[in-house]
Amino acid sequence: MAEGSDDIQALIGQFARLPGLGPRSARRVVLSLIRRRTGQMAQLAALMASVAEHSRECARCGNIGESELCAICADPARANGELCVVEDVADLWALERGRAYRGRYHVLGGTLSALDEIGPDELGIPQLLARVGDEGITEVILALNATVEGQTTAHYLAEALENTGIRVTRLAQGVPIGGELDYLDDGTISAALRARRQL
Amino acid sequence: MAEGSDDIQALIGQFARLPGLGPRSARRVVLSLIRRRTGQMAQLAALMASVAEHSRECARCGNIGESELCAICADPARANGELCVVEDVADLWALERGRAYRGRYHVLGGTLSALDEIGPDELGIPQLLARVGDEGITEVILALNATVEGQTTAHYLAEALENTGIRVTRLAQGVPIGGELDYLDDGTISAALRARRQL
Ligand SMILES: [Zn+2]
Ligand SMILES: [Zn+2]
Repeated sequence: MAEGSDDIQALIGQFARLPGLGPRSARRVVLSLIRRRTGQMAQLAALMASVAEHSRECARCGNIGESELCAICADPARANGELCVVEDVADLWALERGRAYRGRYHVLGGTLSALDEIGPDELGIPQLLARVGDEGITEVILALNATVEGQTTAHYLAEALENTGIRVTRLAQGVPIGGELDYLDDGTISAALRARRQL
Repeated sequence: MAEGSDDIQALIGQFARLPGLGPRSARRVVLSLIRRRTGQMAQLAALMASVAEHSRECARCGNIGESELCAICADPARANGELCVVEDVADLWALERGRAYRGRYHVLGGTLSALDEIGPDELGIPQLLARVGDEGITEVILALNATVEGQTTAHYLAEALENTGIRVTRLAQGVPIGGELDYLDDGTISAALRARRQL
């Protein structure tokens, strides 16, 4: 057994499977947690157990929270008629950090992809269209990544909403070509949101 | 609250402080753990709690294990008269992965550094010299990193062992200049160990 104990090896193996980590960085992380004698690993374990038990997807928008409806869906002040469509919860969080948007969200969980057999149903687009009617939405903001897949999905949604009389906008210039929302600084995201234009 | 819940934010904050991670990769890791509906986060939490409770430093060599003596120190077959000195537990693990070394280890936990006020006592060098006598060591292999600090420490140890009649060797060429053991492939480490030369 090269690495300490079976549990330590298993822990390194689990860390190595996380996005952005590999075997070597997993070993560094685990060793650093073991070395800090302040009980950081036990704290982290307790926190993870709590998050694993309590966190859940919002039944309405797909955000992550601790109740059936997330904090944003549960807040009546956020029902301002605007609905912002994002690919991913990380993108929703990035927009919230920008503090410029005060409406609600819809998380698609991906983009349309013929290759991966991801169609409108897999992305919950029927639910999105139902929300637009049910919640008195007046503007749908398509905050999708400036990638080919993101823009294909945005065009699909713009067409699906074309005859509803609802304003459909997208984030303005400011999102770099090929860039992903979650990589941008908060100010850039806010500026792009403020300068959004109608499709 | 931008990110799900207080616990989720705290978890992201703790992940962001781990070596090689930052706020963005911490968010990706936590979201990916929340999304996998297979209970991976709860498993990982349980494993971390177990490792936090049971792992400890070997009282003799500084390796990480689950008993007062690590598996290597507890194995009489590893008492072959060879003692391999490494800077770090990660380096010990790297040597074990190479499967070429069959003796015991001594983990310094760093290198000599006047700037950081790390002297022989901070690295447990008196204990190392005591082990050499107590355990009938016939060869000390200095497997320190090929950095300035590693080589300074190696020279200090070679001098300290000069009049003991013990063979002092270092890893052979094969360790690239400026390179760190833990970055090398297992075969390179094994070759360097086999071709070790006397100082
Ligand atoms: Zn929600
Ligand atoms: Zn040991």
